[in-house]
Amino acid sequence: MIQTENFFTEEIEVSKSLLKEAKKLVITCHERPDGDALGSSLALNNYFSKLGIKTTVVVPSVYPNFLKWMPGEQDVIAYDKHKDEADKLISEADLIFCLDFNDLARLGDMRDSAVKSKSKFINIDHHLNPQEFASAAFINTSASSTAELVYEFILAMDGEHLIDYDIAVNLYAGILTDTGSFQFSNTSSKVHEIVAKLVGHGIDPSFVHNEIYNSFSLNRLRFFGYCLTKKMVVIRNKRTAYIAVSADEMKRFAIGVGDTEGLVNYPLKMKNIDVVALFKEQNEKIKISFRSKGENNVNLLARTYFDGGGHKNASGGHSDESLENTTVKFENIINNFSFK
Amino acid sequence: MIQTENFFTEEIEVSKSLLKEAKKLVITCHERPDGDALGSSLALNNYFSKLGIKTTVVVPSVYPNFLKWMPGEQDVIAYDKHKDEADKLISEADLIFCLDFNDLARLGDMRDSAVKSKSKFINIDHHLNPQEFASAAFINTSASSTAELVYEFILAMDGEHLIDYDIAVNLYAGILTDTGSFQFSNTSSKVHEIVAKLVGHGIDPSFVHNEIYNSFSLNRLRFFGYCLTKKMVVIRNKRTAYIAVSADEMKRFAIGVGDTEGLVNYPLKMKNIDVVALFKEQNEKIKISFRSKGENNVNLLARTYFDGGGHKNASGGHSDESLENTTVKFENIINNFSFK
Repeated sequence: MIQTENFFTEEIEVSKSLLKEAKKLVITCHERPDGDALGSSLALNNYFSKLGIKTTVVVPSVYPNFLKWMPGEQDVIAYDKHKDEADKLISEADLIFCLDFNDLARLGDMRDSAVKSKSKFINIDHHLNPQEFASAAFINTSASSTAELVYEFILAMDGEHLIDYDIAVNLYAGILTDTGSFQFSNTSSKVHEIVAKLVGHGIDPSFVHNEIYNSFSLNRLRFFGYCLTKKMVVIRNKRTAYIAVSADEMKRFAIGVGDTEGLVNYPLKMKNIDVVALFKEQNEKIKISFRSKGENNVNLLARTYFDGGGHKNASGGHSDESLENTTVKFENIINNFSFK
Repeated sequence: MIQTENFFTEEIEVSKSLLKEAKKLVITCHERPDGDALGSSLALNNYFSKLGIKTTVVVPSVYPNFLKWMPGEQDVIAYDKHKDEADKLISEADLIFCLDFNDLARLGDMRDSAVKSKSKFINIDHHLNPQEFASAAFINTSASSTAELVYEFILAMDGEHLIDYDIAVNLYAGILTDTGSFQFSNTSSKVHEIVAKLVGHGIDPSFVHNEIYNSFSLNRLRFFGYCLTKKMVVIRNKRTAYIAVSADEMKRFAIGVGDTEGLVNYPLKMKNIDVVALFKEQNEKIKISFRSKGENNVNLLARTYFDGGGHKNASGGHSDESLENTTVKFENIINNFSFK
């Protein structure tokens, strides 16, 4: 039996009584949902469904195709596709589970609806720098993933016996993606213990991996190759590399939403590179992803200079300048920036 | 407590008595050792060392630089570098542990010494199509890795309390590499249970991952990109892709021993590709690696047409023809070959 953290006890009681009172329940996560955001939301939804509690998953924006195999995802409502329906669900909700984010700003355009709603919030999350907005908060910044915390939440709610394949595979997908397939330092012994139990519900790891990581189109794989061989810039003395891709280049390779996912990790494969940035020109803005190894804090970089944030080793931000000016700005910053 | 398989009991008794009698012990593995071959050999060596039994790891040929962090590897003797010393150790041995192979042919040039030696053999392995040459054989073709079997061997020898960081991290590296970071279908619930225990000995997953997977040189990463964007050939109607690289191209990118490791897995990232081949021109021969998804049996392909073998989803072979003729031969074969 995997132990849940003691600090959950009081919050669990609050959650239980909120759940008893609530009539209209929504589960949501951050915009541009990733495997952990969607996986933990769907797992919680699957779990409530087994308890006979009706909840609806409403996400701020669409998610990539490689997540479209996850049990229950066909019922998810995306705000940027079905605004009116989503607004109605949010405004009428009396309890909203906020998963995998800890600042309502991460809801993007859906934030206003959430703030106006009379709903109470329950927050389950593992991101740094949490904001307080919830009646009950299950925050553990050293957890591997929100999926790990949802697993603990289910255990703390005495729901372990209700875990079935649909719950297990969604949690597995969340842990898998947020640990980079069990490679990041957040992959504790406990993570493997939990995953051993989840896999026991009939999960085929290669099926999940193929869906998530091996669903490339030929164009996308050629594009990754092109970025690595032609576009990657290395700043040796700062152990940093970056890739900047224009809207034209992405068009040339027919690169769509979510297709650049994972590209930022490739330059980290180099022995002497600890920090990587990916700059993408998109809707006349520059979207930026940062990744790092070890003690190099890209969250600080993203927060200080690029209006963003996230984790120490994985953050995001953006820039309103041109692609070229943004990379010049980045080069200037990192030449004087201390990542540690 | 993780259960060991019952079929081990008798073999364990034989092993115990062989160990009691033996005075000169060697541990060996297949040529061109990978993470599992070296990791399981070193773990067993570390374990015997804690028992006060002196063993020497003698491998048929050198292994890639990305394995040169593994505890104990600095004492390994490679046959192709220190032939005389290796021959002496093999010929004088009275007990040789054969790890991660089940046919003495996999010892390459070292095979003759092993056959001539009066030594007895103990075989621990998970490859298909085993040969009988050992006094005790711990063969489980459905195990994820030889490292998993060495872990069970240590448990069956009542040695669990002796497992320390050095043993654990070598076993972890073996399981990690043979499951492709816990992604292949061989990654059972039991694998994660074992890994949970191993990680508990102080393993930092990101350290091991960085050493094994993220030790690329800039040239190597550019080369991978070049292969994907320029060299990869896709045969859509057979759900097959291949990459053929000449000695000249490898020279141009300064590609050394072990640097092509993992390249063959990249085309499998495509949704509609189930079979991949990598052809490398090396010492006027063509070395071939095959990989596949699911039920597609590349072991059969490698055995039937390319004088090789291995696992269902990961095999190797070679060809004495030119690079071009080999790929033409391959295209002809797969147009008529049934992988299932």
